[in-house]
Amino acid sequence: MKSFRIQPPDQSLRAALQTKIDNKTKPLGALGRLEALALQIGLIQGTSTPTLHAPHMLIFAGDHGIAAEGVSAYPQEVTWQMVMNFLQGGAAINVFSKQHQLQLYVVDAGVNYDFPENLPGLLSHKIAKGTQNFLHEQAMKIEAAQRCIDQGAEVVTSIFNKGCNVVGFGEMGIGNTSSASMLMSGLLNIPIDQCTGRGTGLDDERLHHKIDILTKAQQRHGALASPLELLATFGGFEIAQMVGAMLQAAEHKMIILVDGFIVSAAFLVAHAIDPNLKSYGVFCHRSQEQGHAHMMRALDVQPLLDLGMRLGEGTGAAMAYPLLASAVAFLNEMASFESAHVSEKNS
Amino acid sequence: MKSFRIQPPDQSLRAALQTKIDNKTKPLGALGRLEALALQIGLIQGTSTPTLHAPHMLIFAGDHGIAAEGVSAYPQEVTWQMVMNFLQGGAAINVFSKQHQLQLYVVDAGVNYDFPENLPGLLSHKIAKGTQNFLHEQAMKIEAAQRCIDQGAEVVTSIFNKGCNVVGFGEMGIGNTSSASMLMSGLLNIPIDQCTGRGTGLDDERLHHKIDILTKAQQRHGALASPLELLATFGGFEIAQMVGAMLQAAEHKMIILVDGFIVSAAFLVAHAIDPNLKSYGVFCHRSQEQGHAHMMRALDVQPLLDLGMRLGEGTGAAMAYPLLASAVAFLNEMASFESAHVSEKNS
Repeated sequence: MKSFRIQPPDQSLRAALQTKIDNKTKPLGALGRLEALALQIGLIQGTSTPTLHAPHMLIFAGDHGIAAEGVSAYPQEVTWQMVMNFLQGGAAINVFSKQHQLQLYVVDAGVNYDFPENLPGLLSHKIAKGTQNFLHEQAMKIEAAQRCIDQGAEVVTSIFNKGCNVVGFGEMGIGNTSSASMLMSGLLNIPIDQCTGRGTGLDDERLHHKIDILTKAQQRHGALASPLELLATFGGFEIAQMVGAMLQAAEHKMIILVDGFIVSAAFLVAHAIDPNLKSYGVFCHRSQEQGHAHMMRALDVQPLLDLGMRLGEGTGAAMAYPLLASAVAFLNEMASFESAHVSEKNS
Repeated sequence: MKSFRIQPPDQSLRAALQTKIDNKTKPLGALGRLEALALQIGLIQGTSTPTLHAPHMLIFAGDHGIAAEGVSAYPQEVTWQMVMNFLQGGAAINVFSKQHQLQLYVVDAGVNYDFPENLPGLLSHKIAKGTQNFLHEQAMKIEAAQRCIDQGAEVVTSIFNKGCNVVGFGEMGIGNTSSASMLMSGLLNIPIDQCTGRGTGLDDERLHHKIDILTKAQQRHGALASPLELLATFGGFEIAQMVGAMLQAAEHKMIILVDGFIVSAAFLVAHAIDPNLKSYGVFCHRSQEQGHAHMMRALDVQPLLDLGMRLGEGTGAAMAYPLLASAVAFLNEMASFESAHVSEKNS
């Protein structure tokens, strides 16, 4: 497995960036979170004139052995059907990516389906046709998790080489909220019932069933030592590939748009591997999925948006993208008090 | 004064719109507030294939006699200087309007400055060079308030005639948070200290001074019977013109983007004149200004965004615009379960 060298952003520009922000024609701090975003992006890129180049949205897809336990409201075939929907442009993330001119790729990390070869927009990094059922055994071997990390990194380097400096993450995988809940519970030491939600729409009875299954799985595997071991035991291939993709994106000093519950679980794992990751993450949307708020608290971050969405696919990341564009635009384009001849505050 | 005939949106399309939303390839309700927005826009336009046409941002600017009492952190000349900044493209709202392709006009409702004639982008509807100081007398005569309403309506009809069906409101006027607080306190019957905030950045001492001045003004004028009387007594010309503009926009069945504290105060006045207005309003951003949360509760609405901004100018409305575009786009462009051959939820 590749080892990553993630540098925290150089802080030497901080004062100059803050001064530039403060001299814009607006009361001090009046652009709220856009100002913090402009500062973060400026620091990541090491410039007071940052730009967003060739933005991409990567959707990692994979199937889950645990789906056999009836933990999802939808049948497993929806994973490949939705991948086809992405490739045909009919899903929510297609609409929003088109709106904000985000180049979209779907990565087949391990979908239980044989896609035709050379489908435009599909990158094949299939590890296997779905993970094992973690109620009975490890979802994947440690070596498979390591391969996932390498393949995720490879995908990100390929878009980095095309000039991309901002990448959003999305996912598709029936059963993957179960995986995310297990990872979160293990990493944050939060009881599994507080980490488990309704996913795509379970009713009360099926939610209790899901919690019951996940509790048994946790008892089955016991305490796990490392983030990698947790990832192999409970992860999906799509989650594991996102872990590698995020670490690689941070190594390349790219901005990472973190979507909802599943993508945040991948971020948590990657963050446990290298805490320097955090400076590169922009948290886009507070998911309705129970557990997401705990994740955000654990990372000590506030998502930009709270629109009551719980769809995945990267839709929260896509909706937040124009806010990043606004942050960069005001920093580069607004007049200063001096240049616009506007009087400053009364002393 | 013009009388407005605002029809509540015809509800007969509601079931068909909801069915169209529910059949999109996503779990039921998974697009959260975007779904409610799509429904609202569809009902306003009376179609299940709504569109956003020729979106405009109107910034109403005016000066305030009450500014003489030291209720603002900035000197009064900032009003005209910022108008010039808008016309030269250097303000935050210029940057965001350009980003989202919103056509921007500044309306001089009553700025204390002689602008050169025929400045591109400036619409002259000046009532006077600022209102009177409402600590001592009515801010304007009832007739002036009525003229404001007519002129605001005229501006909106002119953009409606150019095909505009969605209009954002912004404002500029040193001292106008005081005006908005007085209107809010009178309309909602909330004590003035709970309606009064730091505006562009008052410190504790000057905030207390502001509350003190506004309390005295309230005692000076006593109870006021009608929304129009309140508007004349405490309003700014820019606020009064927005009241007419909003009522006219609703009569034309246009979508109204409501920005922060001041614009919401204008909406409250217009809503008191005709409650049918409410269906046409999209509440864009929760202002940091104390009092705004009370306004939103009184109207029983939730702003879309909460980015900690407190700038005015319509910046909150501009930031929310892409969410409306997303709502319309998913409704028009997403595939249905049937068209995409995706399996539905397990029963």
